[in-house]
Amino acid sequence: MSKKAVVIMSGGMDSSLVCSKMIDDAYEIIAVHFNYDQRTQDKELECFNSICKHYNIDKTYVIDLDFFKQLGANALTDRSIDVPTSGVEEGVPVTYVPFRNGIFLSLAASIAEKEGAEVLAIGVVQEDSSGYPDCRDSFIKSMEKSINLGTKDETSIEIKMPLVHLSKAQIVSEAIKLKTPLELTWSCYQNEDKACGVCDSCRLRLNGFKIAGVKDPIIYEN
Amino acid sequence: MSKKAVVIMSGGMDSSLVCSKMIDDAYEIIAVHFNYDQRTQDKELECFNSICKHYNIDKTYVIDLDFFKQLGANALTDRSIDVPTSGVEEGVPVTYVPFRNGIFLSLAASIAEKEGAEVLAIGVVQEDSSGYPDCRDSFIKSMEKSINLGTKDETSIEIKMPLVHLSKAQIVSEAIKLKTPLELTWSCYQNEDKACGVCDSCRLRLNGFKIAGVKDPIIYEN
Repeated sequence: MSKKAVVIMSGGMDSSLVCSKMIDDAYEIIAVHFNYDQRTQDKELECFNSICKHYNIDKTYVIDLDFFKQLGANALTDRSIDVPTSGVEEGVPVTYVPFRNGIFLSLAASIAEKEGAEVLAIGVVQEDSSGYPDCRDSFIKSMEKSINLGTKDETSIEIKMPLVHLSKAQIVSEAIKLKTPLELTWSCYQNEDKACGVCDSCRLRLNGFKIAGVKDPIIYEN
Repeated sequence: MSKKAVVIMSGGMDSSLVCSKMIDDAYEIIAVHFNYDQRTQDKELECFNSICKHYNIDKTYVIDLDFFKQLGANALTDRSIDVPTSGVEEGVPVTYVPFRNGIFLSLAASIAEKEGAEVLAIGVVQEDSSGYPDCRDSFIKSMEKSINLGTKDETSIEIKMPLVHLSKAQIVSEAIKLKTPLELTWSCYQNEDKACGVCDSCRLRLNGFKIAGVKDPIIYEN
């Protein structure tokens, strides 16, 4: 029986590379995607589906979480707060969704336990990810411990975060090496047709491609 | 400004006592309830609403989680698996929902961070709760650490679990002492009109009342 990995996949570049890496490591993939009423929800789901199709992944979970919409108070799900476009600033940005990765990991852990997966993989990037506290490796390691304490004794889940100490440029380079379908990925926080190029997520992505010396295959507004 | 506590309240006896205790400790209550397509969802929500009304709690979150239904594989949300009625057995029961309390705590932590609550309270009971791994105090303590690592640096959340080492009889006695409205609570896993009296949850509740020497105010089938 092949070893199974639950991979949290947003449809973005980072989690798509994680998927490529896990496939490269011979895991059978269980792909998990979250719709949480984020601004680019439809585009992200489309990209998730395209990437799963590209890799012939047939075990997928698409989880609808109305919760963050109900909670409000962040720029990704609350349409009354603008997504910043003037450059990446210090500190926790308004696009921070309270404990989002904690919630995603908890739900994915539940799936992993049910499916008998030994690995849960997430594409957090510590340094390059504009100050989100739930992208730190100390947090992810602690969640791994919590998940193993809070599931059955015979359940053992390792959380892999293979990108946590990479820069966006290294992510671009590795993705090209592993033939990750970057043209199918989406990173923009605010648009669904052409990427805006000026939100934090676009800026980090574009800068990564620039440093890696590669042209980004997706289309930008300007 | 009063100190705030997010209290996870199922509508059951344990979490209602937790609520009474937090009110007794002068916390302003933010009550959180989860609909997760459990068999007695409507009754539990009705009890939650009655208890909030009883205590004049006006800050409430009712979270709809389709997730466990989608996941299946447990007797509380999967109607193809019977709720056991022949007595509490050793080990993890089929009513175990994978990592349920981990998910509940993660969602409640997100609410606590947004609302600026310093406490998150949950009515887990370690010994008396028929073998659920996510009711152990070691797990809850670990989640507390994870939550504080995965939220903003200025966010500090203490998880209180005041019942964790109590027996059901002690819970009944304390609830009566604090005037918890036990007549408004529901514990049965399978019925919504009259409690069955024979599922694990009814058995543990009835046994608690018996040892405490008190009559349970809710109505049973037999």
